[in-house]
Amino acid sequence: MPALDKLKALIAPAKLLTDDSSLAAYGKDWSGQFTPAPLAVALPKTIEQVQAIVRWAIEQGVALVPSGGRTGLSGAAVAANGELVVAFDAMNQIIDFNPYERRVVCQPGVVTAQLQQFAQDNALYYPVDFASSGSSQIGGNISTNAGGIKVIRYGLTRQWVSGLKVVSGTGELLDLNQGLIKNATGYDLRQLFIGAEGTLGFIVEASMQLSRAPQNLTALVLAVTDLDCIMPLLHSFQSKLDLTAFEFFSEQALEKILARGDVPAPFETRCPFYALLEFEALNEDISNQALSLFEQALENGWVADGVISQSTQQLANLWKLREYISETLSHFSPYKNDLSVTVSRVPDFLRDIDQLVQQNYPDFAVIWYGHIGDGNLHLNILKPDNLSKEAFFSKCHEVNKQVFETVQRYQGSISAEHGVGLVKRSGLNYSRSPAEINAMKAIKAVFDPHGIMNPGKIF
Amino acid sequence: MPALDKLKALIAPAKLLTDDSSLAAYGKDWSGQFTPAPLAVALPKTIEQVQAIVRWAIEQGVALVPSGGRTGLSGAAVAANGELVVAFDAMNQIIDFNPYERRVVCQPGVVTAQLQQFAQDNALYYPVDFASSGSSQIGGNISTNAGGIKVIRYGLTRQWVSGLKVVSGTGELLDLNQGLIKNATGYDLRQLFIGAEGTLGFIVEASMQLSRAPQNLTALVLAVTDLDCIMPLLHSFQSKLDLTAFEFFSEQALEKILARGDVPAPFETRCPFYALLEFEALNEDISNQALSLFEQALENGWVADGVISQSTQQLANLWKLREYISETLSHFSPYKNDLSVTVSRVPDFLRDIDQLVQQNYPDFAVIWYGHIGDGNLHLNILKPDNLSKEAFFSKCHEVNKQVFETVQRYQGSISAEHGVGLVKRSGLNYSRSPAEINAMKAIKAVFDPHGIMNPGKIF
Ligand SMILES: Cc1cc2nc3c(=O)[nH]c(=O)nc-3n(C[C@H](O)[C@H](O)[C@H](O)COP(=O)(O)OP(=O)(O)OC[C@H]3O[C@@H](n4cnc5c(N)ncnc54)[C@H](O)[C@@H]3O)c2cc1C
Ligand SMILES: Cc1cc2nc3c(=O)[nH]c(=O)nc-3n(C[C@H](O)[C@H](O)[C@H](O)COP(=O)(O)OP(=O)(O)OC[C@H]3O[C@@H](n4cnc5c(N)ncnc54)[C@H](O)[C@@H]3O)c2cc1C
Repeated sequence: MPALDKLKALIAPAKLLTDDSSLAAYGKDWSGQFTPAPLAVALPKTIEQVQAIVRWAIEQGVALVPSGGRTGLSGAAVAANGELVVAFDAMNQIIDFNPYERRVVCQPGVVTAQLQQFAQDNALYYPVDFASSGSSQIGGNISTNAGGIKVIRYGLTRQWVSGLKVVSGTGELLDLNQGLIKNATGYDLRQLFIGAEGTLGFIVEASMQLSRAPQNLTALVLAVTDLDCIMPLLHSFQSKLDLTAFEFFSEQALEKILARGDVPAPFETRCPFYALLEFEALNEDISNQALSLFEQALENGWVADGVISQSTQQLANLWKLREYISETLSHFSPYKNDLSVTVSRVPDFLRDIDQLVQQNYPDFAVIWYGHIGDGNLHLNILKPDNLSKEAFFSKCHEVNKQVFETVQRYQGSISAEHGVGLVKRSGLNYSRSPAEINAMKAIKAVFDPHGIMNPGKIF
Repeated sequence: MPALDKLKALIAPAKLLTDDSSLAAYGKDWSGQFTPAPLAVALPKTIEQVQAIVRWAIEQGVALVPSGGRTGLSGAAVAANGELVVAFDAMNQIIDFNPYERRVVCQPGVVTAQLQQFAQDNALYYPVDFASSGSSQIGGNISTNAGGIKVIRYGLTRQWVSGLKVVSGTGELLDLNQGLIKNATGYDLRQLFIGAEGTLGFIVEASMQLSRAPQNLTALVLAVTDLDCIMPLLHSFQSKLDLTAFEFFSEQALEKILARGDVPAPFETRCPFYALLEFEALNEDISNQALSLFEQALENGWVADGVISQSTQQLANLWKLREYISETLSHFSPYKNDLSVTVSRVPDFLRDIDQLVQQNYPDFAVIWYGHIGDGNLHLNILKPDNLSKEAFFSKCHEVNKQVFETVQRYQGSISAEHGVGLVKRSGLNYSRSPAEINAMKAIKAVFDPHGIMNPGKIF
């Protein structure tokens, strides 16, 4: 039995929780398919306490699971094997801000929305955004290299991290890149910790860059006549406007949204697909440009109808068409997959997957939506009413292999932005070669020679 | 004696050069301070040939030096110890272009300017630019994570690499990230090869992203009354405009430029510093915005004069004030240093270094210029006429230690964008901790277990 008393003394006055409800709450994430069974939950308040925890874990041979907002969808923050959960709820302060640098130094437990709000209060903008930003933490965002709805313009979390303090699996503190923009002094180790899902060490402080606040964001929702029209449409808009988003969803997704009753239809026209574009209407020229691009798209037969937001209220309403999909579909026990291919291969890829499901399971409904401007598709298969959950998921599991084989054939990613964790571990080889996986394991051994950092996650 | 005949046969019909003038030309870079002494120069045409070279080198125990345009300033492409130079002049084709993805697949020997031109021919833009882009290669740019004059808006080379094929020091081919925008399947190994100065393997193919072409680029040159006015000036412009550049140079730099006689003075007013700002004047609103920011800066006493470009000719002339500095100073045998600190610390840092040189060598002239919007300063110390080159450089060497100590105190970088190579190897510890350097060495051992890839560079 690992010496919890010793740990408690080491990190006091920081908390060590061992009650059942804490263990249950802190042992799982949003994937929801693993039974939590952590040893205990530590809530360090300082970097030194994190280092003390790691040294204790090495001595005791206890595995550690870093834990953020636990909104992850891949089981990467799950503790199901007697691990010590190390959660950052008590390290949630913004500790420095420099307006000239547009840089905010955050403790790892700062909630994404807290950073967004802080930026807004300072007339700036933190552009990484998604439906879970009210609970996810900066440490978790960095460890998953979170993406979201603005990637086409602002990139992923990686692009906004100018410095990282990490405590590696040896207990050492590394101060990586120190907020510099230019630093050509050898390998950029910071990049390794971004997206590492807590397998190399703990992020204990992050320097995050902010952007100029966008002005007069304006959305267009377009009814797209055919899958093959999406790419020319994207191309046409992108060559004239700096799009801040290019999202898409299928007619089946729209149907579900409209059935809720609380989101107004964008227009009467029905098409197989819809695109949501967003841009900064900085001035009239740009708005006119957007309208003329829309007219051209109508003329070319790419779209059959469209609507443009004229107010922030309309902007918000149009976004609901896209942002409510995940929550709305969750009531239909969907089998979800977060995939990506290079942008121009999206139409063929989507058709291939559609066909695959259709051939094998003609009674399964497939619903598509996603960040199509980045090649990122969310595939959702809905459970037919006449099938039990178990039977449905086991059939999906079968089709999944073929989905992953298709991804591999397209040289795509079996996890576009949700990480690998436990959920996609067995599929890693569809997107990464054996040589790459070996290199990853060897790199893990460099930073985590005792194998205590989130073992069993990713590989 | 390594079996060159065998190598020749292995890579035929690709060339293997052993004549003296090739050895001299391919054995050095722009640093110019090491005597070239390579074993031979291989010019592979295919990825398979690169792999064959690596396998041969492992077998023969020969070190390999990847070689691009050899415009590097840190000696990273120098072969002074009987290494085999592997140059990419014969792998210089653009092999694929996808306009929807804005992605160009390049062989490593594609010259930077060739990619820029290709982008322009396709109404797009490759935004990494600097004075050496007419000779530097994409493989070299990636291996140094080259920066340049547009970083404030477009980032460094890293940001434009969506996929890399590399041949590691084991001879294995790794196909990293495959052009995807979103890919959350474990560690992003691609990032390690960016900026690795050829110490992990060869870049044999790169997927490079392009950007929308900038429109109506407009430059402002401002006479800045005091060093402390630069940061509020940057902040004020940056909060209203998306700057594409924010460069600076000192009065002493301007004097040297004007003394050339071929660059017109921007205005009569003389100030200790000058700033060059650039932005896209997409429409009249934006130009007016810039003018009103300028007027505000005059009112605040930050600037004493200014000029705005009204034509592409004027734009080019204003840029000469900044771009000709490096070449102009080269006639004064300057002792150069490429340093960075976080942006807002630039004024204090610059003053500290000035004082340091002044105190120790009151007869040395210090000339500053650089990419101040990124915290990147080029420090140039000019040789007094009465001192021999040798005496001057040996004194500079002494002051260099104190310069690096100052950089360390400011948590800055001893090499902002020129890399470490041989030139700054002994200074690495001023910017990276022993733990980081150990981790780098261990990572090198993962990809280059035989130690054949550019040994002695970086560390
Ligand atoms: C409704 C919903 C919508 C979502 N939409 C998106 C989306 O659009 N785009 C997207 O990318 N993701 C999305 N996600 C997934 C998830 O929100 C993100 O992955 C998020 O970044 C996870 O942050 P977290 O703090 O909750 O991390 P957690 O789930 O707590 O942990 C994630 C991983 O990070 C590690 N970790 C956490 N903190 C640290 C630390 N300090 N040091 C080291 N490792 C740490 C954990 O060990 C784990 O491996 C969504 C999730 C939900 C529930
Ligand atoms: C006048 C002048 C101005 C400059 N301005 C700037 C500037 O503003 N910003 C900036 O960042 N740099 C600048 N530089 C430095 C230099 O141009 C850049 O570092 C450039 O990226 C080097 O490219 P190259 O092809 O010449 O590389 P090389 O000098 O040939 O090599 C550089 C490094 O890359 C490695 N390498 C080359 N090709 C490969 C490959 N295919 N695979 C693996 N490794 C490889 C070499 O081994 C070496 O370590 C300037 C240089 C000069 C002479």
